[in-house]
Amino acid sequence: MRPEPRSRDETLALRRRLVGSSCKLFFSNDPVKIVKAKGQYMYDENGRQYLDCINNVAHVGHCHPAIVKAAHEQSQLLNTNTRYLHDNLVDYAERLSKTLPGKLCTFYFLNSGSEANDLALRLARQYTKHEDVIVLDHAYHGHLTSLIDISPYKFRNLGGQKEWVHVAPVPDTYRGLYREDHEDSVTAYANEVKNIIEQAQKRGRKIAAFFAESLPSVGGQIIPPAGYFQKAAEHVRKAGGIFIADEIQVGFGRVGKHFWAFQLHGEDFVPDIVTMGKPIGNGHPIACVATTTEIAEAFAATGVEYFNTFGGNPVSCAIGLAVLDVIEKEHLQAHATEVGNFLMELLKEQKMKHPIIGDVRGSGLFIGVDLIKDQAERTPATAEAEYLITRLKEEYILLSTDGPGRNVLKFKPPMCFSKEDARFVVDTIDKLLTAMENEDLNQQQTSTGAT
Amino acid sequence: MRPEPRSRDETLALRRRLVGSSCKLFFSNDPVKIVKAKGQYMYDENGRQYLDCINNVAHVGHCHPAIVKAAHEQSQLLNTNTRYLHDNLVDYAERLSKTLPGKLCTFYFLNSGSEANDLALRLARQYTKHEDVIVLDHAYHGHLTSLIDISPYKFRNLGGQKEWVHVAPVPDTYRGLYREDHEDSVTAYANEVKNIIEQAQKRGRKIAAFFAESLPSVGGQIIPPAGYFQKAAEHVRKAGGIFIADEIQVGFGRVGKHFWAFQLHGEDFVPDIVTMGKPIGNGHPIACVATTTEIAEAFAATGVEYFNTFGGNPVSCAIGLAVLDVIEKEHLQAHATEVGNFLMELLKEQKMKHPIIGDVRGSGLFIGVDLIKDQAERTPATAEAEYLITRLKEEYILLSTDGPGRNVLKFKPPMCFSKEDARFVVDTIDKLLTAMENEDLNQQQTSTGAT
Repeated sequence: MRPEPRSRDETLALRRRLVGSSCKLFFSNDPVKIVKAKGQYMYDENGRQYLDCINNVAHVGHCHPAIVKAAHEQSQLLNTNTRYLHDNLVDYAERLSKTLPGKLCTFYFLNSGSEANDLALRLARQYTKHEDVIVLDHAYHGHLTSLIDISPYKFRNLGGQKEWVHVAPVPDTYRGLYREDHEDSVTAYANEVKNIIEQAQKRGRKIAAFFAESLPSVGGQIIPPAGYFQKAAEHVRKAGGIFIADEIQVGFGRVGKHFWAFQLHGEDFVPDIVTMGKPIGNGHPIACVATTTEIAEAFAATGVEYFNTFGGNPVSCAIGLAVLDVIEKEHLQAHATEVGNFLMELLKEQKMKHPIIGDVRGSGLFIGVDLIKDQAERTPATAEAEYLITRLKEEYILLSTDGPGRNVLKFKPPMCFSKEDARFVVDTIDKLLTAMENEDLNQQQTSTGAT
Repeated sequence: MRPEPRSRDETLALRRRLVGSSCKLFFSNDPVKIVKAKGQYMYDENGRQYLDCINNVAHVGHCHPAIVKAAHEQSQLLNTNTRYLHDNLVDYAERLSKTLPGKLCTFYFLNSGSEANDLALRLARQYTKHEDVIVLDHAYHGHLTSLIDISPYKFRNLGGQKEWVHVAPVPDTYRGLYREDHEDSVTAYANEVKNIIEQAQKRGRKIAAFFAESLPSVGGQIIPPAGYFQKAAEHVRKAGGIFIADEIQVGFGRVGKHFWAFQLHGEDFVPDIVTMGKPIGNGHPIACVATTTEIAEAFAATGVEYFNTFGGNPVSCAIGLAVLDVIEKEHLQAHATEVGNFLMELLKEQKMKHPIIGDVRGSGLFIGVDLIKDQAERTPATAEAEYLITRLKEEYILLSTDGPGRNVLKFKPPMCFSKEDARFVVDTIDKLLTAMENEDLNQQQTSTGAT
C-alpha cells in the first residue's frame, strides 16, 4: 500500500504542501532527511552518519533494543486505558516514587510534557485557590494555550503577558542581573521573586505557583546557583503558592550527580510538583506529574474525574519501566557525570583558545557554550553560533543553539554519548572556530590592505 | 527486575496509594483487572473473557497484529521529532487528506485529542482574531485548562462559565428543546446558535469558533438532525467565526455511511477544522488537526514555531498509516454499517418489548439506548441504567452509560464487533431487563399484598 521511499526533495515538497509551516525544520534551507538511528547516531537517506548531540528525548539511545522489546511485548498483549486495573501502571508509579523525595508520592500519567505542565497548573490552582503564576524570563513550558501564557519565550511574540503572569529574572550568573562576581546571587535572585510577590499582592493578586525548569533550557542552558530554589520556594510558599519543578528537559539522570535536576539545590529541597516528559519514554509519548497527597486530595475533592485516554496505558508504562531499567543497568547517570565532565573539560580548554567562547557551563550531559562577540559586554555571537552549527552539520554533527540571543550551543545528547564522541565534536568545533578566526583575520588584513 | 504479577486486590491497593484518586476506575466498587485483549475481547487475570462494547480507541481491534507489527518495525529503525524530514509524516498526511474534503489539506500531528482541540482553539483565534467560542451543552472536549473552559460537562462542576464561552442547546431530537415532532428542528436548533451570536455581539463579544463533536458522545450519544451543521456554520461564519468538527470519538469510519461523522450532514458540508484522536492510532498516543491553507497561513504568519516533541514522529505515523490500511483492507467502514444496522434492529425489537427503552439511535457502530422511567416525561432511568451495566459486567459484557442523566447505554465497540457479539449482548440485555421487570412486578405485588 505504501509508496516507495521518496527523494529528499520530494519529501520536502510534500511536507511544504501538507504540514503546517509553523512546524519548523532544522536547517530549513537545507534540511536533513533521517531514515535510521542507533544509540547517539542518526543516518540520512544516503547512509551518512550524523552524531546526535541534541536529542534528549532518545534518552538511553535511539532505538534502544530493550525499549523496543518492552514496547513490542506489551503491545501484543494489551493496550487500554486506566479505567481498568493493570500492574504496569502501579509498578511504574512505584518505581518512579523510589527516585523522588518521599513526599512526592502521587502520580498522574499523560502523553506529553505539555499535558503534564497543564495538569500541574490545574493542580496548583485547585490546591491554592489562587490564580497567579511566577515564571522565569525566557522560559518555555509547552505549546498549549495555558502554557504559552506562562512562557515568556512564546507570549512575547503572541498574545502578550496576562495579568496573572509574573516574570522573574533568570538566575543566570553569566549574563543575568547578578553575575559570578556578585557576593550572594542566590539571595539576590530570590529577592527578585519576593519583590514580584509583594508587588502582585499590592494589586490584590494571589500566587498559585512558581513554575521553573530545574535547569532553564530554552533560556540558554542556565545553571541556577544552588540554593536559589529553596529561597524562591520559601517566598512563594509564604504567599500561599507552591513550587513546580519542570524536569521535562533535564530529568532522569541527565545532570549526572542526581537523578533529578532540582536535587542540584540540595537533597533537602522538595518541590510540591514535579513534571516529567521528553526522555521518560525514549521517544514514546509519555509524561508524568508527581505531587503530594495533599495536592492530589484537593484536586480530587472537586469530585470531577481526570481522565486521560492514552495516559498511563500498559504499553506506555512498560516503556517507562524499561527506560528506568536501562538507566540503572547501563549506569547512565554515572556515565553522564563522567562523559559530561570530560566534555566540559575539553570545552573549557577551547575557551582558553578561542575568545568567542565566553562561558562553558553545565551538569552531566546538559551543557551550554555561550558564544560572545566581546569579553566586556558579552554580546551574544548570534550569527557566529548559527554559522557554526551549520558548518557542524556539514561535518555530520547535529548541534543547536538556544538562549534569547540564540548564541548558546546546547549539548543534551542521548545518554550513551561517549568520550570519543565528545572528543570528535570538540575537535571539529576547534577546527571550525580556528577557520573562522583565520577568515576574520584575512578579512581584516584584506580590508586593511584596501584602505 | 519487575515483580511477579500481583493479585487484583494488591494492584488495587497500590493504585489507591500511588495514583491520583481523580483518575477513576470503571465499576469502582469492584473494578476489573484486565491483562490481555484481542479483537473485541478483553481478559482478566483469571482468563475470563469480556466482550468490549465501549472501547472506540481500540478501533480496528485490540492488539491488531498489523498495527503491532507496524509499530515494531518502525521502532527498530527510527523514532524522532519532525524537525527532520521523514516519509511517514508526509505519507500519512497525504493518506489522511484523501479521506477529507479537498479544502482540509494542512495537517498538524499531536499526541492526544486534547492537544488537538487546544491547537484548534489557537488556530481559530489566530485566524479570526476573535476570542469567543460557542459549544453545545454537556459537551466534553478534553482535560486541558483551555478545554475545560469549553466543556459544560466539566466547567459546571469546576470554575464555572467564562465570559467568552457560549452554550448552545444540544440538537437532541429525543429529549432536547425541539423534538422529533417539531416541524423543522434543524432550523430551530440553528436559530438558537444565531440568537446566541446576536446576544454575544450586543455585549461586544466576537465569535472565533463554533466547536462541536460531530456526534455528541458524553452529551448522550446524540445524532444531530442532518443539515444542522450547515445552518449553524452559516450563522457562525457570518459572524466571522469558523466551524470546528471534533471527530475524536466518532471519526475513522465508525458511523459506517461515511468516513467522518460530519459528512452525515451532507457531502457538501466542510468544516474549517477537523480534530482527530482516540481511534487514530488504535491506542497509540496520536492525534491530528486538519485545516485549510488560509487558517494554517494565518497561524504561521505570527512567525512563532509550533513544535510538538512527540507529535508526528515516524512510529506514530507508521501506526496511523497501518490503522488506515486495516480499515481499508478489512472493509471496517462497511462492516460498521452492517453490524451497526443489525444491532440497531435488535435493540429496536427490545424497545417494543421493554418500556424502559425510550429511544434507540445511532449510526454505524455508534449507538445510544436511552433508558427512561416513563414515556410521557422521558425521565432518565439513571439508577436502572447503572444497575444494568453492573449486571452486564457480571455477565462479562463491558458497556457504559453517558448523557447528563447517565441513562444512555453507549455502544462504540472495536470495529471488528460481530453480529454474534451483537446478538449476545442484546440477548443478555433482554434477559436482564426481563428479570428487572419481574422483580418490579414482584415488588409491586408484595407491596400491594402488604397494604
